[in-house]
Amino acid sequence: MSDGGSPVPETRVLAVASHVVSGYVGNKIAVFSLQSLGCDVAALNTVQFSNHTGYKQWTGSKVSAQEITDLYQGLKQSYLDDFDMMLSGYVPGAPALEAVGQIGQELKRRAKSKPGSFFWVLDPVMGDNGSLYVASDVVPVYKSLVPHADLVLPNQFEAELLSEVKITDMPSIARAIQVMHERYAIPHIVITSVSLPHPDHPVSSLSVFGSTMTSDRKPRAFKIVFPAIDCYFCGTGDMFAALMAVRMREAVYNGGGGSQQQQQKAEKETPPLMERESWLSEDSIDALDLPLARAAEKVLASMHEVLTKTAERMEETIKKSRAETAADADGVGAGTGAEAEEKKMGVLRSKAAELRLVRHLDSLRFPQVEFRATRL
Amino acid sequence: MSDGGSPVPETRVLAVASHVVSGYVGNKIAVFSLQSLGCDVAALNTVQFSNHTGYKQWTGSKVSAQEITDLYQGLKQSYLDDFDMMLSGYVPGAPALEAVGQIGQELKRRAKSKPGSFFWVLDPVMGDNGSLYVASDVVPVYKSLVPHADLVLPNQFEAELLSEVKITDMPSIARAIQVMHERYAIPHIVITSVSLPHPDHPVSSLSVFGSTMTSDRKPRAFKIVFPAIDCYFCGTGDMFAALMAVRMREAVYNGGGGSQQQQQKAEKETPPLMERESWLSEDSIDALDLPLARAAEKVLASMHEVLTKTAERMEETIKKSRAETAADADGVGAGTGAEAEEKKMGVLRSKAAELRLVRHLDSLRFPQVEFRATRL
Repeated sequence: MSDGGSPVPETRVLAVASHVVSGYVGNKIAVFSLQSLGCDVAALNTVQFSNHTGYKQWTGSKVSAQEITDLYQGLKQSYLDDFDMMLSGYVPGAPALEAVGQIGQELKRRAKSKPGSFFWVLDPVMGDNGSLYVASDVVPVYKSLVPHADLVLPNQFEAELLSEVKITDMPSIARAIQVMHERYAIPHIVITSVSLPHPDHPVSSLSVFGSTMTSDRKPRAFKIVFPAIDCYFCGTGDMFAALMAVRMREAVYNGGGGSQQQQQKAEKETPPLMERESWLSEDSIDALDLPLARAAEKVLASMHEVLTKTAERMEETIKKSRAETAADADGVGAGTGAEAEEKKMGVLRSKAAELRLVRHLDSLRFPQVEFRATRL
Repeated sequence: MSDGGSPVPETRVLAVASHVVSGYVGNKIAVFSLQSLGCDVAALNTVQFSNHTGYKQWTGSKVSAQEITDLYQGLKQSYLDDFDMMLSGYVPGAPALEAVGQIGQELKRRAKSKPGSFFWVLDPVMGDNGSLYVASDVVPVYKSLVPHADLVLPNQFEAELLSEVKITDMPSIARAIQVMHERYAIPHIVITSVSLPHPDHPVSSLSVFGSTMTSDRKPRAFKIVFPAIDCYFCGTGDMFAALMAVRMREAVYNGGGGSQQQQQKAEKETPPLMERESWLSEDSIDALDLPLARAAEKVLASMHEVLTKTAERMEETIKKSRAETAADADGVGAGTGAEAEEKKMGVLRSKAAELRLVRHLDSLRFPQVEFRATRL
């Protein structure tokens, strides 16, 4: 622990993602996740929407590529660009993504002379469950950016897009990881929420797959299996990415990588791994001893606690909302008939599925690790 | 305590204020303050600037009155306007402020049939130290909105504008409070950061003055004296307002108002005061027993801890920044000469004075109350 109960030393993070007024996706969930663990977050919002698009209706506007660049120039001119990490999430459209990519590349370039001093977590937000939800010209932009990042967090579909490997079983997962390390020289990969038939995987479970490459770009892969919750939540990917950023730094800071290094609370010396390019563990470190594995275990513990607690309250919340909105003539359910009722129920379900992390701060800060990394 | 260590029951807050990418003012400090105490915050950002204007230079853009209204309509159509509280801070220009005022008034109107179910904390951001920093047509808009709010938090200058009483001593403070209660029927007032010569007030101290009116609009006033820190911080007013919103709700929820009511941890009955219009304590309750006094004590404790810890690190931070930026040709200090150096130092000082609340979460959550309310 550092000062004030933060698990990481002073950490300045540039977080670039969408902002929603109500609810928890994009920067709205990432910024709080990072701050609650002690990070000083510069939050560059790429959109301001009333709510996330899972509601099927929203208002608000996007921020242009030029505005993104201008905001970054504003930071630079006042010496506010001294970032230790960058976390980039949803960016609307290829030009805006290119603007964000320029920022990431510039920060990486400037840090070249001080290995390990800047770490870019790139969430290549392109789609899910087999379909794109961004314009198709965004895909090649992500492919051009991944080689500059330190950690990418694709979901199963996005991993397929980046690797051009169809993921259907364990060997194809391993191949996709290998291809990404080789093609993009991307040091750390976590593929989130993979659902595959396998004896180790009960029907109601999901897995994440992680890997940190060796010096010759070979995978060191692990998986973590955890129980699925039968509900569709939005913002889980954004929360996962934000927590991974902090927990990765924490694991590296605490001398992750198998050896039991010094873990004093204050003013300790910088661990050697923090001064290695991309925090790449030595080749002798086993997959299960990687900082990436330690980080993913903690993150999944936090996620599982928050999701479980959110799910527990959902039915009650929907019932309460229905009662309160029964007489409301302003909302989406105004009008009569089955269609209006269905639309209204969809909205109330989305609202009830908003992650309840602000009510469960301790789940973010002090998760109980239950699901451990195992060999692939 | 409610679930997850939050001091308040489920609380949905609409927070309307400015957003800065880097640093801590407006919604950037208010949202985290509210969230860290368990509030579900809908954050409607009225601007997105790279940094606060105390740096003397920034980039970014403002959100129009129409966009503010649209975002609120977006919330309404998806039943996301079920707010327990609203906190409104800096809004750029009279038309945008009017749009925010419409939202506050609509929420108040809708809550009429359920007294105490909605509480509006209005920070009338107009100026400081004798000068306006908004356009002059903003002043009458605030004057028209105060009668609809539940708690206003003017600084000394803003209290003078609202009351048209020049504040020079204790009697004029008392008169300003009395005029505001009478003229605007505003239930709760806290005048922040007053610096007055008085035997009770050592040179290096500041005071806040609070009052909750009686049923015939008479003041019940108290003051809290606390040590000043010799440094100019930005965002203190915004942090104060956000914490006051939560701590006021907490004090009312815990049966504030002198009587020792039930304080069970879970699922307790709604305290009677929460169902009174504007959470107005009965006339029999003394000034020093007001929920407003309890709230202000806790808020000042949190503020004093965070400001002290920020000040402790300032010199070191400035020195470190100077060393790191010595060779930087991009920033504001590019160029030579005394003027460039002075400009650069101003920027680095602003940066070092950014409130370090994310490193001191426990100061927000569990402050040690030292400074108590006393009679005016």
